[in-house]
Amino acid sequence: MFNYSDRRTKLYALMEQQGVDLVFLPKHSADLDYLTGSERRVATFGNVSYTHHWVAGAFLHPKYEPKFVLPRMIVEFDSPGGVDQNTTIVSEQDDSYALFQNVAKSFGKVKKIAVSARTWSETTLQIMRVFPDAVVVNAEELVNQLRRIKSAEELELMTSACRVVDSVLDRVQSKVILGVTELDLKAEINFQMNDNGSKTESFDTAVWSMGPKNARDASDRLSSNQLMEDMGVSFDFGSVINGYCSDFGRTIYVGDPNQEYQFVYDLVMEAQAAGIAASRPGALASDVHNATRKVIVDGGYGEWFRHRTGHCIGLDVHELPYISEEDHTPLEVGMTFTIEPSVFWPGRVGVRVEDIVVIEEDGARKINEFPTTLVAN
Amino acid sequence: MFNYSDRRTKLYALMEQQGVDLVFLPKHSADLDYLTGSERRVATFGNVSYTHHWVAGAFLHPKYEPKFVLPRMIVEFDSPGGVDQNTTIVSEQDDSYALFQNVAKSFGKVKKIAVSARTWSETTLQIMRVFPDAVVVNAEELVNQLRRIKSAEELELMTSACRVVDSVLDRVQSKVILGVTELDLKAEINFQMNDNGSKTESFDTAVWSMGPKNARDASDRLSSNQLMEDMGVSFDFGSVINGYCSDFGRTIYVGDPNQEYQFVYDLVMEAQAAGIAASRPGALASDVHNATRKVIVDGGYGEWFRHRTGHCIGLDVHELPYISEEDHTPLEVGMTFTIEPSVFWPGRVGVRVEDIVVIEEDGARKINEFPTTLVAN
Repeated sequence: MFNYSDRRTKLYALMEQQGVDLVFLPKHSADLDYLTGSERRVATFGNVSYTHHWVAGAFLHPKYEPKFVLPRMIVEFDSPGGVDQNTTIVSEQDDSYALFQNVAKSFGKVKKIAVSARTWSETTLQIMRVFPDAVVVNAEELVNQLRRIKSAEELELMTSACRVVDSVLDRVQSKVILGVTELDLKAEINFQMNDNGSKTESFDTAVWSMGPKNARDASDRLSSNQLMEDMGVSFDFGSVINGYCSDFGRTIYVGDPNQEYQFVYDLVMEAQAAGIAASRPGALASDVHNATRKVIVDGGYGEWFRHRTGHCIGLDVHELPYISEEDHTPLEVGMTFTIEPSVFWPGRVGVRVEDIVVIEEDGARKINEFPTTLVAN
Repeated sequence: MFNYSDRRTKLYALMEQQGVDLVFLPKHSADLDYLTGSERRVATFGNVSYTHHWVAGAFLHPKYEPKFVLPRMIVEFDSPGGVDQNTTIVSEQDDSYALFQNVAKSFGKVKKIAVSARTWSETTLQIMRVFPDAVVVNAEELVNQLRRIKSAEELELMTSACRVVDSVLDRVQSKVILGVTELDLKAEINFQMNDNGSKTESFDTAVWSMGPKNARDASDRLSSNQLMEDMGVSFDFGSVINGYCSDFGRTIYVGDPNQEYQFVYDLVMEAQAAGIAASRPGALASDVHNATRKVIVDGGYGEWFRHRTGHCIGLDVHELPYISEEDHTPLEVGMTFTIEPSVFWPGRVGVRVEDIVVIEEDGARKINEFPTTLVAN
C-alpha cells in the first residue's frame, strides 16, 4: 500500500544532511514498520525472548536495500507475512555477533550511526562493539521528521481507526449504568474493538470513575469497582488499523449531573474548542496548549488540568511533537494530534474529552465524529 | 508480599562478585518489578511517550536504597500504586540530563555499570555520557540468577496463573466448532481471562488451524477464518496474576480425527512426558530438549518439530534458561519452565501441547491441570 522506497529516499536525504552514515532500527518498531512495512508484533506484557534475540532489526544505508538480521525463531514463528529476502538468519548454534558484524561492516566506513530511541541496550552495546570509533546518535529525530506528516493514505487509516472507537463507544455507552464494573466495561470495549476490525488495543483500555464518592485519581485507570451514582466515568482507549493507532476519550455521568459537573463539562469542551481553533499551520504546539489551558485557568480549574493538551499520533500512540508547554514545534499540514483537556480533581469531579485532529491549510479538522454533548445515564 | 530488600541483598552479593558498582533498571521492566515491587504498565502496541521519558527507571547500589528517576507524567498518571519516596521527579521544563546525572553521580566512583538488557538506547547513551570511562554491561545475567529460582510465594502465583488458563480453556473448548472464527475464540479467551482475574494477556493470544484444508503454518497465529472440518485448532495463551505469567497450549480437533492426527497427537504427548521425565535437578536444559525431541524424531516427524522445547517463565513469558539445544544450564529446584513439543507440518497436521512444570527435589511436577487427552468436537 505504501511506497516504502520513497519514504527511505527521504530518510537518506536527512541522513546526508546530518552526516549519518547508517541507521539501525529494531524489528518490532514503528520506525522499521514505517520505512520497510515490517509488521510489528502485538506487544506482550511479559517479555518474549529468543536466543540471539538482540540481533533482530535492520540496517538502512542510502546505497543499499535494507538489510535485516533476525533470529531463526522470529523468521519461522513470528513473521506471518514472511521476511525480506535480504535477511541474515541467525540460528541457535550460530555466532550471532559474527553474523551481525558481517552485515554491519558490509556498508563500508561508518563514522556516525543512528539507532532507534528504544533499541535495546544489549543491541546498542553490540553496535558500539562493531563500530568502536563511531558516534552513536538517537534516530528518533530523523525518522520522526518524516513520520510526523501524514499522507492521504495514512489519513485514511487514521480515520478508520477513529471510526472504530466512535462506533465502539456508541455501542457501549448505554451500558454505563449502576452496578456494572469498570472491568466489565473494559472487557466489552476490547471485545467490540476486536469485532470492529481493530488488530488489538493501541494502549491499555482505561475506565475510571471520579467524583465525590471517593478520592480516586486519574492515575488509577481501571478497577473492579461497580459504577456508583453521581460519578463521572472517563474512558480512554484506542484501536489499531493497519498499524495506525487511535486514542479517544469521553466522560459519561451516572445519575443527574450536579451544577459543578455541568459547569466543568462545558468548560472542558470549551477548552477543546479553543485548542482546535488555535491549531493551524505555523502555530506552535505550545500555542495550542496555552490556548486550551487558558480556558480552564480562566474558569477557575487550572490547578486540576494537570497534563499536556495532547500529542501527535500515528503508528505510535504518542509521537513528537507534543502539544505541551515545552514543545515549540511549528505545526504543519498533515500533522495528526490529540486535543485532550481535562479536569481531574480527586474526590470532586473528573471530566476529559479526547479527539484527534488533522492540520489542514486553513486550520484543524476533527477526525472523530462521536458527539461531545453531555451524556448522563 | 515479597521481601524486596532480601532480593536486593542477593543482587548486591552478585554485583560484588562480578565487580559491578551500579545497576540501572528501566521503570516498566520485570527486573525492576522483581527487585523493588514497582508495578509494570500493561504493554502498549503503539509506544506511549512523555517528555524526558528516557530517565524513567531506578539505580541500585549496595550502599543505598534504590533511587528512582521519573518524568512527572508517569508519577501523576501512570503510577497507580504511588511512587517510592526516593524519587527524583523530572518536570517538563526541567533539564532532565542534569537531574539524571545528579542522581547517577551520587553513588561515588562507578567503574562498571550494569543495565537491563532492554533499557532504551536513548537511556543507555545518556548513562554512557554520565560515566564516559565506565564499562557498561548487560544486567540480565545478574538479575536472572535470582529470578530463575522461584520461591514458594512465587510458585503460588504461578499456580494461580496456570489455574486461570486451565479454567478458561475448560469454558471455551465446547465453542471450538464449525463456523466459529479464530478471532471469535481469541476474543472469548481474552474475555474469560479478564473474568478470571487476569490483569491482561501475558502475550498475544493465538488461535490457528492447521491440517489438509490449507497450507497454513504456525507462524500465522490468528486470522478471521472460520473453523473447518478435519483441522486441528491450536491454542497458545497466557494470563497474568500479580505480575506472574502463564503460557499454555492445547490442540482441539474439529471433526473425526484421522489416523495420522491421532498418531501425531499421541507422539507429541509422549514427547512431553519424556521431557518431564528428563527434568530433574542437575539435568541440563539441553538434556530435556534432547529427550523430548528424540521421541518425535523416532516417530518420524523430527523435521516438523521446529523449535525449542520450552523456556523458563515467571514475571516474563520467556526467561533464561531456555529448554533448547544450545542451552546447557543445569536445572535447579524452583525453576519453572514450559515443555511444549509440537509437530507443525503445513498442509498436513498441526499439534502442540504446552504446560508449565516446576523442578522439585525428585523431578518435575506439572503445574497445569488441564488434561492432555485428545479432544475432538
